[in-house]
Amino acid sequence: MTEYQPPRGTRDFLPEEMGRRQYIIDTVRRVFESFGFEPIDTPAFESWELLSRKGSGGEAVRDEIYYFKDKSDRELGLRFDLTVPLARVAACNPQMKLPFKRYQAGKVWRYDRPQAGRMREFVQMDVDTVGSDTMDADAECIAVAFEALKLLGFRNFEVRLNSRKVLNGLTEFVGVPSNLSKATFRVLDKIEKVSVEETVKELKRIGVETGTVTKLMKMIGTRGRPAATLARIAKQMKGVPAAEEGLRELGEIEALSKAYGFDRNLVIDFSLVRGLDYYTGPIFEISVKAGKNMGSVSGGGRYDSLIGLYGGKQVPATGISLGIERIYEIMKTEGMFRDAGKSCSVFVISVNDGVRKQALQIARRLRAKGICAETDVMGRDLRKQMDYANKKGACCAVIVGPKEVKAKKYTLRDMKTGKESRLTLNSIIRKMR
Amino acid sequence: MTEYQPPRGTRDFLPEEMGRRQYIIDTVRRVFESFGFEPIDTPAFESWELLSRKGSGGEAVRDEIYYFKDKSDRELGLRFDLTVPLARVAACNPQMKLPFKRYQAGKVWRYDRPQAGRMREFVQMDVDTVGSDTMDADAECIAVAFEALKLLGFRNFEVRLNSRKVLNGLTEFVGVPSNLSKATFRVLDKIEKVSVEETVKELKRIGVETGTVTKLMKMIGTRGRPAATLARIAKQMKGVPAAEEGLRELGEIEALSKAYGFDRNLVIDFSLVRGLDYYTGPIFEISVKAGKNMGSVSGGGRYDSLIGLYGGKQVPATGISLGIERIYEIMKTEGMFRDAGKSCSVFVISVNDGVRKQALQIARRLRAKGICAETDVMGRDLRKQMDYANKKGACCAVIVGPKEVKAKKYTLRDMKTGKESRLTLNSIIRKMR
Repeated sequence: MTEYQPPRGTRDFLPEEMGRRQYIIDTVRRVFESFGFEPIDTPAFESWELLSRKGSGGEAVRDEIYYFKDKSDRELGLRFDLTVPLARVAACNPQMKLPFKRYQAGKVWRYDRPQAGRMREFVQMDVDTVGSDTMDADAECIAVAFEALKLLGFRNFEVRLNSRKVLNGLTEFVGVPSNLSKATFRVLDKIEKVSVEETVKELKRIGVETGTVTKLMKMIGTRGRPAATLARIAKQMKGVPAAEEGLRELGEIEALSKAYGFDRNLVIDFSLVRGLDYYTGPIFEISVKAGKNMGSVSGGGRYDSLIGLYGGKQVPATGISLGIERIYEIMKTEGMFRDAGKSCSVFVISVNDGVRKQALQIARRLRAKGICAETDVMGRDLRKQMDYANKKGACCAVIVGPKEVKAKKYTLRDMKTGKESRLTLNSIIRKMR
Repeated sequence: MTEYQPPRGTRDFLPEEMGRRQYIIDTVRRVFESFGFEPIDTPAFESWELLSRKGSGGEAVRDEIYYFKDKSDRELGLRFDLTVPLARVAACNPQMKLPFKRYQAGKVWRYDRPQAGRMREFVQMDVDTVGSDTMDADAECIAVAFEALKLLGFRNFEVRLNSRKVLNGLTEFVGVPSNLSKATFRVLDKIEKVSVEETVKELKRIGVETGTVTKLMKMIGTRGRPAATLARIAKQMKGVPAAEEGLRELGEIEALSKAYGFDRNLVIDFSLVRGLDYYTGPIFEISVKAGKNMGSVSGGGRYDSLIGLYGGKQVPATGISLGIERIYEIMKTEGMFRDAGKSCSVFVISVNDGVRKQALQIARRLRAKGICAETDVMGRDLRKQMDYANKKGACCAVIVGPKEVKAKKYTLRDMKTGKESRLTLNSIIRKMR
């Protein structure tokens, strides 16, 4: 064994796993594109000032950013999400036609304490719409993620919906002092990881009064089928402008959910907060069945101030992110992969050294017809080539020997059944396709 | 405009360019897989010790590695290629079945002086075969890159071939002191960037004697059609064991080149060195026509000691890398993209707010049939939706109005010709596919 392992919090992905991750990424990408989102790419690192800027999201994860200087002493950091880079791109490119509907798939890094299913390097796939202030854009983002998850085979969903505006109104309404609202949100954000009791304790610790905490916990405990829940809470919060606007927006998303197909999975959940600071409107999270529980695999929301914060025009934006690691883990545990993404491949076996070149040429002709074809590079004999083809999961072998070359008919062996037949190359190609 | 730009030496890729890069990556990946190579992924950063280790390649680019410490003071660096990480993976996983044929596509970073076409962040796509010491593996790597470039549309190629063994024998033969051989290689590696005269001057400066320099320059000037060149030089270097072995290996690759289809493009070029230190056997580079010159877009070679250096068993390995940036630039300049990768998409237009939901549902049904379908998220009127569809390059628009909804027949407009017809949704789907 070697002393060199991947750095702590990161890992390697060997072919079996990587092939499946690639299948997830390709599937999600296809759905993104089917909604008219287009790809962009941004650098792995950004200026430290951008990443850590107050209000940019970096504030909440400041301690988790990988910080470094380049050789000219520029302060840089590895990106911790794909939203901040997108907002910078939008700020840098004021000439951009709106709406700017983009997707991006890429690694992001957070120096978190490593734990099961949470790595310091992970892959996110984001769609965002820049330039639209209508709830159509938010509903569409939810729909895109929803369709991607459906295409991956997920059936049991929950789409949780809340709004930062409602949360602002709500904390104001129950009497949380405005200077404590951000801290309050951060405590609430951890409610699923800790218990309700601990959340209550923590809220008191940061200075929220006991009576206010009780009212707050009751309000955010409101959770249920959208229309009824929205109507009930709207009645209670009448006259709180932020809440009223937020509730109206949630109502609009609810009204669109049927046309988009996620109406039956929609739940209003006032305890949903989302960690990062940049959200300004609707926020959402999608969970899927993972064993007996639901696991969050996707989340996002509206951030109408971030692009302006980075010095661009004040342009509204909304987006959603899918976490590849979580999706992979749940699909694996739930046995959802089967042979997803695996296509049939051929191993072209040379019986002896005299026919190696012929085997190479046959493999080349198969590839030219779109068939994956592998040949030996180890100088192995027939038996060992056959073993390797089996282990690698080839569905057929084409056996090339001196007699076969002479007759221009080759043995095609079905690796599952062991059945063999002698065919011309053209017949083999016809059969394989 | 904003003060926030991408960090120096890096850049953003907006949709038009990124779509084309994605097309290159997807095409190359398909060819890699057609040869039986499987995907892996490794972290963006590795331990500094691994990257900078003597003999690992990092020595030559040590000053170009982005170095940083994590919050636990671990010394890390952004990877500068994909070969070093692969060698670490092979060293970490001695249980791996051989041959291990893997590919990887990913970003790498070098703190180089930024210049036209050279960025500090760039994407490489590598195939490598671990575990084979036969020249079949080397020839296959060349063939894979060759086929990938062909599928991208390149026609005018040069596959330059040399060998580190031959270079070692050659420097020994002409009398370069062995302690100067690495420095000599580094000077020779720059021969294409500087002039022959400057190379001569530099060789003298590092301590190679004038007579030796003359002999060396004459030997490496040997360049030509493979069989003849190999025979001529083999005669001269008879009795120099390293050279003899290297020349025999090059002869084997040459003998396989016809079956693999790159025989007519093969050139033996003894001036080819390749920058990194880890090569031990054949080295190769592929250039394509770029304007009046040839531009190198791919290179690699055999590195039989690197995995052992990282504490694994001593396992032979060989591989090749394609540089996406260079390929993109040349394809763009040569007008090779046309509409590569662009598929037909539909914009579903709602004539007024009363039929927005119907438009959403129609788009959803189109997507379910594999058709890319976009809808308005800006609350725009018919005219502006049509403009946007045009600018975005949609090939058709489906116009949904109250009358259309009632009749269940929608207007399908060809965006190029402006021709319109009224059809049921099923007929539209049939037509689009």
